[in-house]
Amino acid sequence: MKVLITGGGGFLGYRLAQAIATRGHLIGHAGVEHAVTGITLLDTTFPPEVDARFTCITGDLLAPGTLERALGGDTASVFHLAAVVSGGAEADFDLGMRVNLDGTRALLEACRRLARPPRFVFASSVAAFGGALPAVLDDSTTPNPQTSYGMQKVVGEYLTAEYGRRGFVDGRGLRLPTIVVRPGKPNLAASSFASGIIREPLNGERSLCPVPDSTGVWMLSPRKVVEAFVHAHELDSQAWGVNRVVNLPGIGVTVREMVDTLGRIAGKSVVDRVEFVADERIQRIVRTWPVNFRTDRALRLGFQADAGFEGIVRDFIDDQGIKV
Amino acid sequence: MKVLITGGGGFLGYRLAQAIATRGHLIGHAGVEHAVTGITLLDTTFPPEVDARFTCITGDLLAPGTLERALGGDTASVFHLAAVVSGGAEADFDLGMRVNLDGTRALLEACRRLARPPRFVFASSVAAFGGALPAVLDDSTTPNPQTSYGMQKVVGEYLTAEYGRRGFVDGRGLRLPTIVVRPGKPNLAASSFASGIIREPLNGERSLCPVPDSTGVWMLSPRKVVEAFVHAHELDSQAWGVNRVVNLPGIGVTVREMVDTLGRIAGKSVVDRVEFVADERIQRIVRTWPVNFRTDRALRLGFQADAGFEGIVRDFIDDQGIKV
Repeated sequence: MKVLITGGGGFLGYRLAQAIATRGHLIGHAGVEHAVTGITLLDTTFPPEVDARFTCITGDLLAPGTLERALGGDTASVFHLAAVVSGGAEADFDLGMRVNLDGTRALLEACRRLARPPRFVFASSVAAFGGALPAVLDDSTTPNPQTSYGMQKVVGEYLTAEYGRRGFVDGRGLRLPTIVVRPGKPNLAASSFASGIIREPLNGERSLCPVPDSTGVWMLSPRKVVEAFVHAHELDSQAWGVNRVVNLPGIGVTVREMVDTLGRIAGKSVVDRVEFVADERIQRIVRTWPVNFRTDRALRLGFQADAGFEGIVRDFIDDQGIKV
Repeated sequence: MKVLITGGGGFLGYRLAQAIATRGHLIGHAGVEHAVTGITLLDTTFPPEVDARFTCITGDLLAPGTLERALGGDTASVFHLAAVVSGGAEADFDLGMRVNLDGTRALLEACRRLARPPRFVFASSVAAFGGALPAVLDDSTTPNPQTSYGMQKVVGEYLTAEYGRRGFVDGRGLRLPTIVVRPGKPNLAASSFASGIIREPLNGERSLCPVPDSTGVWMLSPRKVVEAFVHAHELDSQAWGVNRVVNLPGIGVTVREMVDTLGRIAGKSVVDRVEFVADERIQRIVRTWPVNFRTDRALRLGFQADAGFEGIVRDFIDDQGIKV
């Protein structure tokens, strides 16, 4: 069976592809283990050197013919990560609607035309939540997004569930916490700072933090989120039941705790590279995001959070081969 | 200011138009009373004789030019009722997606192009709810629709809220209970029986009830729902706040109670015209709908339920000039 990962040129999508390739199989249709015979990555850009095990398709999901090329008749697994990020969708409403909403629908429609409904894992986000929120959110909290990105993700969840109920796909949605620490460059996501204040100082660079140090971040590490995508795929349909989206477990950490942890691990000279420069545009978005969850359902389904922030930073340092 | 009512040729839309025309004004932008200078009805079909006060546009909301014709530059109020009903959207997925989802989005986009954001009242439905439900739903219950119609309505709510947050419209959404008693003919709505078992016997005809008499229906009368549409429009933006959809108040009545009430009012010979003939397709849809709500927020906002089912039947008899 073949696997398609949209956004497969991005950090998470690419890491997921590597994890699946290394595993070599996925539990899928009828709860049976299937050998992975091909992994297709669909994205607008790719890393300079791509693993030869992957088929890369460069293009816009909505461009004519792209999805037909990406979805072979034997595609049994689709991971849909491609999206315009929160800051981008807020800055350009029409672009966000096109990519995040029309793109998701077009992909689901293309899946519907496959001979057998694929397992379809949709990357949603805690940006689904906003407005008047309880101090601790739980599985019963109703999404009330206060960003365009959040709205588009919620609509994607409902589309995934309904295409699933119709039998066009076997749909599953994950509401991702903020992923920390992302390698690479800052991006347009309003949450970009949460990785930046760890990554840049460790790379010897200054990092501007646009939010006050009391700001909390509900987070999950790259390792754990890749595990979550695979687990979401492999869970039985019955385990999901009639509720096809779940809040992933995470840990709530304040910027102050993040900076202090970095200082303990890498020293004062490193942590002094973080500078607080308020950015009201970013704060307006981040302020609407929740910081603490009870994720009983996810834990019951077997999803796992990180043990703590220190481990997240140490994993990043290991993965990147940074000397501290 | 002008008013547009989509689905204005339908029973509820037309009745709403009559109510607004009779009032002659609506509280709208800036909380000020505006004289209604025109009411446009957009629909695919209209009653044979239409009130001369209305401008009727016959056509598909998505047909080129239709929305431009329907939305004059001075349109300040839009009531969006047009939809493929529940049974229809379940029978034809693509039609439901086109009308209920694409149609709503196209209308919101057309509103966005107006010089001033209109008040936009969206008719959603308790079909938003489904899956594993509590015995009594409340304002915190998360929509988990188990029909295509329900999903499309939920997505419409989120679109309305987000276009509102963006300032493209001043959006408000109402989750309508089943409206009882509708006059006219049975329709494709899975809830059609709830009116049929009262209306047909009173008109001297047999009525087939496709669900068992233990089935509960969460209902609101035509009079009360028209009041609710006007009230939803006239409420201050601040009263809605960051939550732009509300479960309307209603009453929960079983089919048995409905039939018994009809018998008390119209006699045994009338009620004997109801015949129970199970229809599994209808039951499968209706079974997913909730029957009892606490609607604290709606009541606080000033929306009202009917006093009881007997009054609903007596109003219908009066409105239709039926002799009992």
